[in-house]
Amino acid sequence: MTLGGAGRFWPDLAPVLLPTHPVHFVEEITSAQNPLVKLARALERKKARIESGLFLTEGARHVTEGLDNGWQLHALLLSDAATDRDQVRALARQALDHGARVARVPERVLESLTHRDNAQNVIALFRMRLAGLEALAGARRLIALERPRDPGNLGTIIRLADSTGCGGVVILEEGCDPFSVEAVRASMGSVFAVPVVRCGVDAFDAWRRQEGLRLIGTSLEGSVRHTDVDPGARTCILMGNEQSGLPPAMAALCDGLVRLPMAGRADSLNLALATAVTVYEVWRRSGFDGARF
Amino acid sequence: MTLGGAGRFWPDLAPVLLPTHPVHFVEEITSAQNPLVKLARALERKKARIESGLFLTEGARHVTEGLDNGWQLHALLLSDAATDRDQVRALARQALDHGARVARVPERVLESLTHRDNAQNVIALFRMRLAGLEALAGARRLIALERPRDPGNLGTIIRLADSTGCGGVVILEEGCDPFSVEAVRASMGSVFAVPVVRCGVDAFDAWRRQEGLRLIGTSLEGSVRHTDVDPGARTCILMGNEQSGLPPAMAALCDGLVRLPMAGRADSLNLALATAVTVYEVWRRSGFDGARF
Repeated sequence: MTLGGAGRFWPDLAPVLLPTHPVHFVEEITSAQNPLVKLARALERKKARIESGLFLTEGARHVTEGLDNGWQLHALLLSDAATDRDQVRALARQALDHGARVARVPERVLESLTHRDNAQNVIALFRMRLAGLEALAGARRLIALERPRDPGNLGTIIRLADSTGCGGVVILEEGCDPFSVEAVRASMGSVFAVPVVRCGVDAFDAWRRQEGLRLIGTSLEGSVRHTDVDPGARTCILMGNEQSGLPPAMAALCDGLVRLPMAGRADSLNLALATAVTVYEVWRRSGFDGARF
Repeated sequence: MTLGGAGRFWPDLAPVLLPTHPVHFVEEITSAQNPLVKLARALERKKARIESGLFLTEGARHVTEGLDNGWQLHALLLSDAATDRDQVRALARQALDHGARVARVPERVLESLTHRDNAQNVIALFRMRLAGLEALAGARRLIALERPRDPGNLGTIIRLADSTGCGGVVILEEGCDPFSVEAVRASMGSVFAVPVVRCGVDAFDAWRRQEGLRLIGTSLEGSVRHTDVDPGARTCILMGNEQSGLPPAMAALCDGLVRLPMAGRADSLNLALATAVTVYEVWRRSGFDGARF
């Protein structure tokens, strides 16, 4: 980890910093052309995320969740205004403790990173991390998505998985990037809490059979309503993608194929909504086990 | 309705056009500075929508739905490529029949309107139209939203209302614009099929009492699960907004206040997902009346 030449000592935090850390002060960055700012900006693009292994998250609360869940923080960018807040100062200390770079950045520079007028005052660069199937062992509920296309849907579904005690989200074959800015934003911090696995269909199907998970697909070709299927004691819900639904070969792997009742002229729901309705129905059938309420 | 000076005769369609229509030919537009193109581009902004009374929709299928549902078409913009398709040619005829302007526009100009690389080949300018409460009379299910903020959520909920046979969507007090590009896009054409009403809380509550609709609010303060409330024979589901949930004064109006079970670290669901789970549960309790499946 290099400091670059722009670092200046930030006295307010200095007394609390341990001298053993490689980076033990807060840098001041004023230029939008600073290499760290340019890196952060580049993380909008998948190519830059793959090359650097990093992704962007916004907001102090979500950064805390990342750290609490053991994600590796690379750098923290704070606006001038944010550094007045006790919570943010504590976060800066925690970040330095983790060996991350911490930089104070003008608000207009942060806004240029988030494309928002009311930028979050805290932006973090974390190292990307996908889980393996073994992280899902013992899950009572899972969500598998076949090639999801919309990162907003993917992030919202990761948040849903978190809210409903699902053990994780499996992206089958290819699919949009769970670490894109839009997906991370929609996940509202849940991307740090829910294991996300990317996996081929065959490997996934072999694993879930061994695990004893019942695979319930939702499809316009389904022959029973989602309320009428036997979800079994442990269930993986399988959703086709936004454009084309579940391919026949994958539908054939399912233990049950359900369809959501529809009225009116619409022939489908938004993917994230359909997933939510199905997951809540499966969870209802098990008496909402593990719910806080 | 004026033609402007740029109109050129488009011979392929001429034979089918009735001579009694004020506009009976397809204009050729080549410039991104053409007033109609500039108007279309301006409709991204709420101010321009209010001033013109118009909004934008994309895609031949959705334009057809607008026309079939009696919405007033102001203008239709077609890409060069689109005019090769029979469906689009039929649509152009139908649009001229309705007295709308029809223009052929280079693809790059259409792309600049939608900010998409793969632009829809058909863009339409329709006249905005909100419904009154009387349009909701007799509905078995309704969705009311308190000051929704995210147009993507609003559009998705309008699509949900369509899919579940809800009589309409009520936006209470202020809220984001159902005719914004993002809301219309997320509604997937349902904005043409589902009455959307904007209304004050007091007027709405008086109306729904007179109608005999049971008002079920969802709130983090709710004391029963959404599966345990009596939805009554006719139900209006009331959802608070994305930031602050249901205000106490509105919660007090409700016949029942429910809460979705939650697990994990997440303390809430995305608004559209929470609405979907609640609506499907209410619908399930009535045996999915009116479902096609």
